[in-house]
Amino acid sequence: MINDKLLDGLYNKEKRSIARLISIIESENELSFEYLKAIHKRTGKAYRIGITGPPGAGKSTITNQIAKIYLSQSKSVAIIAVDPTSPFTGGALLGDRIRMNEIGMSEDVFIRSMATRGSLGGLSRKAVDSADIFDAAGFDYIIFETVGVGQSELDIVKAADTTLVTLVPESGDSIQAMKAGLMEIADLFVINKFDRPAAENAFMSLQTILNFRSDEPNDWKPPILKSVATTNEGIDEIFNTINAHRSFLLNNDLFQKKRAENLKLRIKDIVLEKLTRKLWSSNNNNLLEKSLNDILSGKLSPYELAEEIIAKFD
Amino acid sequence: MINDKLLDGLYNKEKRSIARLISIIESENELSFEYLKAIHKRTGKAYRIGITGPPGAGKSTITNQIAKIYLSQSKSVAIIAVDPTSPFTGGALLGDRIRMNEIGMSEDVFIRSMATRGSLGGLSRKAVDSADIFDAAGFDYIIFETVGVGQSELDIVKAADTTLVTLVPESGDSIQAMKAGLMEIADLFVINKFDRPAAENAFMSLQTILNFRSDEPNDWKPPILKSVATTNEGIDEIFNTINAHRSFLLNNDLFQKKRAENLKLRIKDIVLEKLTRKLWSSNNNNLLEKSLNDILSGKLSPYELAEEIIAKFD
Repeated sequence: MINDKLLDGLYNKEKRSIARLISIIESENELSFEYLKAIHKRTGKAYRIGITGPPGAGKSTITNQIAKIYLSQSKSVAIIAVDPTSPFTGGALLGDRIRMNEIGMSEDVFIRSMATRGSLGGLSRKAVDSADIFDAAGFDYIIFETVGVGQSELDIVKAADTTLVTLVPESGDSIQAMKAGLMEIADLFVINKFDRPAAENAFMSLQTILNFRSDEPNDWKPPILKSVATTNEGIDEIFNTINAHRSFLLNNDLFQKKRAENLKLRIKDIVLEKLTRKLWSSNNNNLLEKSLNDILSGKLSPYELAEEIIAKFD
Repeated sequence: MINDKLLDGLYNKEKRSIARLISIIESENELSFEYLKAIHKRTGKAYRIGITGPPGAGKSTITNQIAKIYLSQSKSVAIIAVDPTSPFTGGALLGDRIRMNEIGMSEDVFIRSMATRGSLGGLSRKAVDSADIFDAAGFDYIIFETVGVGQSELDIVKAADTTLVTLVPESGDSIQAMKAGLMEIADLFVINKFDRPAAENAFMSLQTILNFRSDEPNDWKPPILKSVATTNEGIDEIFNTINAHRSFLLNNDLFQKKRAENLKLRIKDIVLEKLTRKLWSSNNNNLLEKSLNDILSGKLSPYELAEEIIAKFD
């Protein structure tokens, strides 16, 4: 059952209510769907920015610096930091502590970290659902900050209006490691730590790679920016480019179009997750368990079993 | 319609027939399911090895060296190299050329590269289906070689009997970037390029990380091996450890158990893919397109639409 006081707290931007609702989302409770339905009409106003890239590229620092600019303009910012990396390293926690000292004390900032704790299931869905919570609470900007290594993180930045891919001069390997899809969704690239050796080479390499892309004549061309985020060099340009991209979307009737595309992916994600849960709840799971030996011994093929299970959904 | 001559060719280990069948699998044709059903009873004999890790860790070199040992023992080896990285870099092709010069000329080797070409859909399913082709053809060993960066690659190595995770001394970042899941499925770790500085430190760091894992008393403890694959140092030990792991599985009744677990994941993967295709084929897709504006304007929530679509599958 929905708690109306919790919703009132949310609409009043109370941090406790926001934190409680995100916990409900994280707990995979059916209840969370009820809340998300209830708040939906209040969403859509926040501008959503995705910041992704390989580990160590300075995503948190850039996020913080951008957030500081918004704060200086009396805007509120919610940061959703998704760290799907090893639970052994504790990287997420350390980053959070540094971040909290810098901007976390402000009333206009809310930072939420989400880690996988060993499982990736539904992480992208939860991150995007959490953005709805912040949106309904009235935050002006929502920043998704996520390590760009897998499909799940790709799904998260696909929920952003503007996506920033951060690299470092040594990112040759990292560029390779990036999914093709990640290259394609970048609205701007930032080569951070540009005071390091070989920075200009990295810049030219990336430029060469991007030149291979076949763009439509009126497309937005993702610029490559240079920064040293720790000393704030290049941050203003990043900030201005995010705004320029936003204006580009709005002036070319692409803003709603992009949101509609993102929404499609989100709904497919939700349907897939709910359907998978329904699919493997009881009967089919029993059938699967019972059939394993027949498949291993060659009597039945995996495809025959799959078809048998799917046939029920006709 | 199934072509019996193609199947005869497959069972005679003819390279042309094998290549043709893998192309059928890659083309996402419904026909491929018919072939996979037909050959299923001939599968299950090949031993499957997964080699994964970050880009630049020497996966191809290690794969080649291991393959050479099998060849020297008159065993046949199929290599499925999955490269989900940017289509811009051309890394897969270059690696292939080097590899072909070294071992590709042997009659007992078949190397197949699979790249995403911009889309990750079904890649893991296709890689695992291809392994069935090689298995039915009578290959003794199948090696999956894949960049360990995302869920899709995780799904591939989950189809292996023994999984090897390769790292390099500088892999601090890469270890962070690895999914928790990847750490958990490693049967052995290899720190390659061990002649580089800080190699011993990397070894000790990894050891410390692994000590955090809570193992069952009778579990296999993934050893950490050291190698310089380009000069063949440490390769024999890797080879022996793969064999030791295989014996461990067989002697502890874990071999069939592990295959059954892998099979479950595979079937769920197949069902999910087929169901998704069915789900978004026509009516639901129209419903989705028509509902986007209502959702963007706040009239309808994504969860309500998702439930409407799922309700049809009752």
